[in-house]
Amino acid sequence: MEGQRREPTRIMVGVNESTINGYPNASISSKGAFEWTVEKIIRSNTRDFKLLFLHVQVPDEDGFDDMDSIYASPDDFKSMKHRDKIRGIHLLEYFVNRCNEIGVACEAWIKKGDPKEVICHEVRRVQPDLLLVGSRGLGPFQRVFVGTVSEFCVKHAECPVITIKRRAHETPQDPVDD
Amino acid sequence: MEGQRREPTRIMVGVNESTINGYPNASISSKGAFEWTVEKIIRSNTRDFKLLFLHVQVPDEDGFDDMDSIYASPDDFKSMKHRDKIRGIHLLEYFVNRCNEIGVACEAWIKKGDPKEVICHEVRRVQPDLLLVGSRGLGPFQRVFVGTVSEFCVKHAECPVITIKRRAHETPQDPVDD
Repeated sequence: MEGQRREPTRIMVGVNESTINGYPNASISSKGAFEWTVEKIIRSNTRDFKLLFLHVQVPDEDGFDDMDSIYASPDDFKSMKHRDKIRGIHLLEYFVNRCNEIGVACEAWIKKGDPKEVICHEVRRVQPDLLLVGSRGLGPFQRVFVGTVSEFCVKHAECPVITIKRRAHETPQDPVDD
Repeated sequence: MEGQRREPTRIMVGVNESTINGYPNASISSKGAFEWTVEKIIRSNTRDFKLLFLHVQVPDEDGFDDMDSIYASPDDFKSMKHRDKIRGIHLLEYFVNRCNEIGVACEAWIKKGDPKEVICHEVRRVQPDLLLVGSRGLGPFQRVFVGTVSEFCVKHAECPVITIKRRAHETPQDPVDD
């Protein structure tokens, strides 16, 4: 009906950083999944969709992975936390800017924890119409060691899920990357 | 660009018969997956999508499941084959009619074999942009005995895959059904 617009379709998109190029670069699978959705699902119908970008940061076990020394003052911890937040924001900025270029409404936020658990938790909380996850398309042998977020989400997320594998020519030398 | 329309997004939809109500009724998960796609993905943008309905018929091990007698003449086999075809066509008719009502272009066809293998084979042959599979959302215990087509397709289909679980209130008493 004219004048009475239906609610947009809300698509939650899990995005992560590139393991090859590091922050603020997004992984090949995140970028690929996003661009595919714009081209194949949203198309010219930009007003009818809203994208919800979720970036989950994995806490390091010891918190020292990037530091030269294991001796650290309380201030070091504070600045580390701050640095992580900034990195995550720069990653999300890429997607938010692309949405602005295309003219699609979006929101973006960061959470800490185990990506697969956090994504499913956020699906319950935010109730998107659809969850979009990029997949590295790993074989069974690689999967044993890496675990795949997409497989878990297809089973456990309480909404429909699109899984988008990388295209063959985009797969990096080590398929476990990105 | 005006006057130069982009190719529509081609969505292959795997549909099967209801195990509760039998042919020509479609399963709850097939209908649910289809209606969800119309409402959430296609929306008002009907000209930009084309739906490709694939129904895979599983051959009976002995070919006699629905017959009163195991004695059959060659003509019986012919009429059985013919009957199966008719049933499949009536199932597909439901989806084709819905597409006509909505104004979305579509194609529909029937294949025989193991649904998960045939769907992945047809994806390679037809190269849709997206494969849509309904899922019964079975737990790990039920999965062991039934196997799930959707899980196999997410891993093996050479295109992005949407998995759509039934909504809780649509799940039949025996979740292995439909």
